[in-house]
Amino acid sequence: MAELIQPRLLKGFRDFLPVDERERQRVTDVLCTTFSSFGFEPIDTPILEYTEILLGKGGGDTDKQVYRFNDQGGRDVAMRYDLTVPFARYMALHLHELPIPFKRFHVAKVFRGENTQRGRYREFVQCDFDIVGTDSTSADFEIVLLMVRSFQAMGVSGVKIHLSHRGVFNSLLAEHGAAENSEEILRTVDKLRKIGEEKVQNALVNLVGTGAADTILQFIVRGKDNNETLSSMRELAPAATAETDRLEEVFAMAESLGISGSLVLDPSVTRGLDYYTGIVFETFLDEIPEIGSVCSGGRYDNLASLYTKQRLPGVGASIGLDRLMAGLQEINKDAAKAGAADAIVLATGSRRGDDHLVADALRGQGLRVEVYPDERKLAQQYTFAETKGIPAGVILPDGFNTGEMRLSVRDLSARTNLADLSIGQAAEKIREIAGR
Amino acid sequence: MAELIQPRLLKGFRDFLPVDERERQRVTDVLCTTFSSFGFEPIDTPILEYTEILLGKGGGDTDKQVYRFNDQGGRDVAMRYDLTVPFARYMALHLHELPIPFKRFHVAKVFRGENTQRGRYREFVQCDFDIVGTDSTSADFEIVLLMVRSFQAMGVSGVKIHLSHRGVFNSLLAEHGAAENSEEILRTVDKLRKIGEEKVQNALVNLVGTGAADTILQFIVRGKDNNETLSSMRELAPAATAETDRLEEVFAMAESLGISGSLVLDPSVTRGLDYYTGIVFETFLDEIPEIGSVCSGGRYDNLASLYTKQRLPGVGASIGLDRLMAGLQEINKDAAKAGAADAIVLATGSRRGDDHLVADALRGQGLRVEVYPDERKLAQQYTFAETKGIPAGVILPDGFNTGEMRLSVRDLSARTNLADLSIGQAAEKIREIAGR
Repeated sequence: MAELIQPRLLKGFRDFLPVDERERQRVTDVLCTTFSSFGFEPIDTPILEYTEILLGKGGGDTDKQVYRFNDQGGRDVAMRYDLTVPFARYMALHLHELPIPFKRFHVAKVFRGENTQRGRYREFVQCDFDIVGTDSTSADFEIVLLMVRSFQAMGVSGVKIHLSHRGVFNSLLAEHGAAENSEEILRTVDKLRKIGEEKVQNALVNLVGTGAADTILQFIVRGKDNNETLSSMRELAPAATAETDRLEEVFAMAESLGISGSLVLDPSVTRGLDYYTGIVFETFLDEIPEIGSVCSGGRYDNLASLYTKQRLPGVGASIGLDRLMAGLQEINKDAAKAGAADAIVLATGSRRGDDHLVADALRGQGLRVEVYPDERKLAQQYTFAETKGIPAGVILPDGFNTGEMRLSVRDLSARTNLADLSIGQAAEKIREIAGR
Repeated sequence: MAELIQPRLLKGFRDFLPVDERERQRVTDVLCTTFSSFGFEPIDTPILEYTEILLGKGGGDTDKQVYRFNDQGGRDVAMRYDLTVPFARYMALHLHELPIPFKRFHVAKVFRGENTQRGRYREFVQCDFDIVGTDSTSADFEIVLLMVRSFQAMGVSGVKIHLSHRGVFNSLLAEHGAAENSEEILRTVDKLRKIGEEKVQNALVNLVGTGAADTILQFIVRGKDNNETLSSMRELAPAATAETDRLEEVFAMAESLGISGSLVLDPSVTRGLDYYTGIVFETFLDEIPEIGSVCSGGRYDNLASLYTKQRLPGVGASIGLDRLMAGLQEINKDAAKAGAADAIVLATGSRRGDDHLVADALRGQGLRVEVYPDERKLAQQYTFAETKGIPAGVILPDGFNTGEMRLSVRDLSARTNLADLSIGQAAEKIREIAGR
């Protein structure tokens, strides 16, 4: 026999065991259902695209992280590193086949050859949702509302969406003649949460001098409530009336929908170097703020300017599903994991398909039912059921006949049997044992 | 402004528009729910793996089709071209973390740089389900039953699973001293459905001479029913008693579960050069047999022999989701497509969030409800709703107040309005219009 190949994974890539994959699919389903309930529509794009499409004129840090190669036909191709660039290309290509404004969601894998030492993965799932083709505040608010409803649907409480408006910040910088340095200032301000006020102040003083640094710091530090923060923003950036009015309108809508408790007006949120031009937001979990933002986004002026002359303003957000799921696991670490099935039909004596017949009948009652395929000792079958988190056993008694279909059901953790049940009674008993 | 980049796709790769992606997700959900109802568990593996893992010692036709390159770290990597090889590697790596027998399903994209002229895609979705770690006939039957139940759950009728046993065929060839040529014989026999009896006969005569060719042909042609076919198989391959007994047992179980009408004993099914050793099957749709098999598979002796010494026999099947969906589209071409939402709250007059409030309340009633974000003429909003397949409109009357929440609902195709409804009445009316 030939030498074995060592079974191993590439660094930064992961297998998903059933218990984790089941949870990921559950969360994904909840999100997709919530998005759909808002009339958002699913799309998909290829994982592989022309490099020119994905990197544009290129040049940034991203480029080095992109998986890029020449395919069999000599084409310069790359694996997508986010879902935004392919979406921009998609909009340009299908503009006339889509309803505008277009509301889409996309949950899919992306690939980045990042440094894995920072706890990052090279293959991970992004979950994006956007409204494209409208400038309206209504759309801004809808994205925020959808974020709140999505976290509620996932059963995550203690969620805070930190909002600001990039235009207000830009106005402030312009007023202090600091617009030139804006990229570096944004990068610095973005670190407030990580490195604290003092270090940010020092960095700002170096960049723009004491006076402007003080004003910027005053601007980014929150007031005691959202109203006070808004007043301070208005005062420090008096030219940005349209922008602060829009923020006020979003908060008024939130009040009317009863979700304002989940919103924090936070002028330190700028989304760094991203292409946002309007409202911007990041989302933190009260119980574990240290994992950082689990959902970020904002409004942009023009999605697809690389590929079409048609202006496409929009607003959207992206959930980092891996980071979020790590967070959920942390929060719910004592929660019972869902088992692989509600019941298992145990292999006892000659069966010739009777076990499948019973399992199928129980499935007809809405249960998930497994059949153990081999003649093994019951103790071994019990261990198997335990490994899969299956709470109930089904036993076909000696002399079982398919006309009457009388069964026994065993509570596998209590180790008690209930005999002589009809299919309906057995289903009820299993439901009771499984707590469904 | 810089020159535009032409938005285009790589040959063999596809975008999915919402109407198609929605259908793909619906079918996927139905399949995953059905698999789960049998206690099968979801897994996931990376799209990118070490080339050595995916190609093993390599050398076949597949190799040329594989997307392979050196990553940033100089590793020789490749994109998966099926879900079987990664599953074998997965089993070897996680053997001691998994319940054995292990029942898994995996629905995911795979990549092959194939000739697209044959209507094949270079990125497509496979849907695999397997039971690994058991030799039992019960597992063979369970895979067949799961196939039948999966097609039923998808609402596809007229499905025929053609079954045979690779061991019976091998025994027949051995008996006629044709085992040496078996690869080419299998390849020839596999073409029966495509090129017809005569051409297969001619090819066989060239390979094994007239006598053996006649016997092989006699073997692969079906009798008038499954029993007659089984008798003929027993007669022509008398040494393969264990194998024909197993086939008989599978058909007996099918009889007992009432699914034997979906099974066809068909000795011409061999699965060509695949690694199957036991029962093998292919699945055809009565209405469109010409699209070929939409679900194929069989029993194998040892899944992961490249990566581990642990013997892992199993049985499984794979649904070609793209081919199947093309087939379903053909069969249901007049069926109405699901719309993006059940209702749309139309933009009329000043709203300040009231439209979102109403939409949210209707969502609370289990409806999918969209909000139109811009102040536009109603005619334009109606057209938008039509494009998205949304059947009902919701209108907030002048003087709408959030305490009473009285609404109008419009049937957008009948062009009739019903005024002064409560949220509950509106929900009921929308359900009626949407036929839900």
